[in-house]
Amino acid sequence: MVCEILAVGTELLLGEISNTDAQVISQGLSEHGIDVYYHTVCGDNPARLSAALDIAKRRADIIITTGGLGPTADDLTKETIAAAFGKRLYCDEDAMKRLRERMGPGMTPNNEKQAWLPEGSTMLVNDWGTAPGCAFYAEGCHVIMLPGPPRECTPMFRQRALPYLESLNDGVISSNYIKIYGIGESSMETMLKPYLDTLKGVTAAPYAKEGECEVRVTARGRTREHAESLCRPVVSRICEILGDAVYGIDVSSLEEVVVRGLTERRLTLALAESCTGGLLAKRITDIPGSSACFGWGCVSYSAAAKERMLGVSPATLAAHGAVSEETALEMARGVRALSGADIGLSVTGVAGPDASEGKPVGLVYIALSHAGGEKVVAMPSRYARDRARVRHFAASAALDLIRKEILR
Amino acid sequence: MVCEILAVGTELLLGEISNTDAQVISQGLSEHGIDVYYHTVCGDNPARLSAALDIAKRRADIIITTGGLGPTADDLTKETIAAAFGKRLYCDEDAMKRLRERMGPGMTPNNEKQAWLPEGSTMLVNDWGTAPGCAFYAEGCHVIMLPGPPRECTPMFRQRALPYLESLNDGVISSNYIKIYGIGESSMETMLKPYLDTLKGVTAAPYAKEGECEVRVTARGRTREHAESLCRPVVSRICEILGDAVYGIDVSSLEEVVVRGLTERRLTLALAESCTGGLLAKRITDIPGSSACFGWGCVSYSAAAKERMLGVSPATLAAHGAVSEETALEMARGVRALSGADIGLSVTGVAGPDASEGKPVGLVYIALSHAGGEKVVAMPSRYARDRARVRHFAASAALDLIRKEILR
Repeated sequence: MVCEILAVGTELLLGEISNTDAQVISQGLSEHGIDVYYHTVCGDNPARLSAALDIAKRRADIIITTGGLGPTADDLTKETIAAAFGKRLYCDEDAMKRLRERMGPGMTPNNEKQAWLPEGSTMLVNDWGTAPGCAFYAEGCHVIMLPGPPRECTPMFRQRALPYLESLNDGVISSNYIKIYGIGESSMETMLKPYLDTLKGVTAAPYAKEGECEVRVTARGRTREHAESLCRPVVSRICEILGDAVYGIDVSSLEEVVVRGLTERRLTLALAESCTGGLLAKRITDIPGSSACFGWGCVSYSAAAKERMLGVSPATLAAHGAVSEETALEMARGVRALSGADIGLSVTGVAGPDASEGKPVGLVYIALSHAGGEKVVAMPSRYARDRARVRHFAASAALDLIRKEILR
Repeated sequence: MVCEILAVGTELLLGEISNTDAQVISQGLSEHGIDVYYHTVCGDNPARLSAALDIAKRRADIIITTGGLGPTADDLTKETIAAAFGKRLYCDEDAMKRLRERMGPGMTPNNEKQAWLPEGSTMLVNDWGTAPGCAFYAEGCHVIMLPGPPRECTPMFRQRALPYLESLNDGVISSNYIKIYGIGESSMETMLKPYLDTLKGVTAAPYAKEGECEVRVTARGRTREHAESLCRPVVSRICEILGDAVYGIDVSSLEEVVVRGLTERRLTLALAESCTGGLLAKRITDIPGSSACFGWGCVSYSAAAKERMLGVSPATLAAHGAVSEETALEMARGVRALSGADIGLSVTGVAGPDASEGKPVGLVYIALSHAGGEKVVAMPSRYARDRARVRHFAASAALDLIRKEILR
């Protein structure tokens, strides 16, 4: 079964809102093994909506529309769809009864239009708003109409549309997400291609996002167990090929892996940040429960703060500058001593837009100090883009250093 | 001129991401008086992309595509569009040169494909990522290809595609953005509506985002000067109506206003963060040049850090808890004393997901300590949503406190 999602609303075409309904619906459909080939958005315009319907009819078995079910004059989805399928509208008594109960005395004549549905429809009860949805089958196509506001569309899709669709489709889809840090998308593609080309019945799609990569492995099976058993060997093989660049499977982020790993090992972390200016602490504390492993962070953005808060020696700053291996190391030692944490981690570098101390934008030093020893790594300035990305990549590199040095 | 936005990416059809590129592009086009009749999303599939192109060609004068310009095998937008318009691909020397500079030794053969463009294209330089965009005119249609990742697509659209489109339509558009903090969207609309209803030839559109509001004032004139002169009186009147809820015009953020204001006044700020966990320091240091007014930040996520780094008294923590006016005030005093900064600012609260010390998620105290005195404000828990928003709103409230207490 192939589905097309057709959103109706001029506010989408004006960019006033983003089409999040399509995302929620697509997610649910892919989990239920229903393919989506197209999303279409058109305005509150009968002629253009009919044209979009004619196209959708030809390329989909299921059309899910969102929006245009309300009481106002520009809510024309039901009328237009009924006409496109040569149907009349009828007043659904049940819908009218629920509408009257819901609206009470505040009900106006134009509210009544919400109870009129294309003939032959199943009414989909809307417990989250006033406009009911509906579904019918015609011309070889299942048509499902849902209200537009996300707070109504999401539950209407999950609790009304999905049960209707479940009865139509065969098979279940299962996906795993392999999360990768430390190699670029194209190197990853080069490493994986020979293997990916041999795959049959299982798809593996690489993505790059925010300096990380991800491979989504997806298979369709008769049952969830069957679909999962098809993914498993492919996931293992990809992990073998990519080695320790893989930081997790079906996890949300590097910071989640680090916080979980430190907490399991009962280790505590303290941070000394210069160029990342609190971003690293922010990412750690984005994770609920991070207080179990993280208690102390210092943003030493000035030389004075490096000296007086972290005990970096003025001689080191004078001899090597704030952006140096030596300073990074003294920052890490300093915050570890100050806090009494098991691990001290520091970041110092040039975030840009301008070079400083004659050092190029993007040059970053990251230092780690713990009972097992010390380590400093440099992030070459070659990866410099804008300030935001230098800072994001520096924080990611610091998290990955903990993963590789402490959590392996 | 009518434009269609065609997004290419299987991840959109799987619901992994929402099509925010289409929103940003639609917003910009509507500001520039270009109509958008349809958005289409299709997957990384040449046949279905060609079919979508054939449809878009017939119903639009401008086609803007997003996505599929990357180095991997499933990035097929340029190849497919070239074929659909009967064009060959050529290797753009300038694009290849920039690609080599950008990638350095990390460059792999499949990266080179990013420098191949449909013949007759204008290359659109991508300063935010590796894949250049391009634009050409064929079969009565302007085709513009932009990369998919929002952090690349947004600037590529605004700084590359819009100037290209500006040259196609007559007149010049000028916009001003009035930034507002501290009143809700509906109160703002109620305050503004009587005036906005009187406007002719100038549009003023209110938006709400991330706990802030924005009013975009837009006019089309014969020249830039003319368009600007039409906007000016409307902007002033709206600022009068909204009073000190307006924190800036054509500025990017509260943090930018705070960093600029403190720097102009030669004042220094030190931060003591608990629930925001570094987010406030991160937002301050997002601003280039923030080191002029910000040198010290402490993330005191544990009681020990509050006591030993900031000098909060154990008695205060015992009597009132970490989330209290008293603790907030001692944190602000402590970081001011520690750093010698002119202003000490602290944030302590319950970010969630769980309540703590029997205090509700979303309850946050913000304290300010400076030569002029001290002030503590509470952010009531009724604004609580998810952890990320509690933290974001708390940081915004802290920035606004500096604006109102120090910078007015």
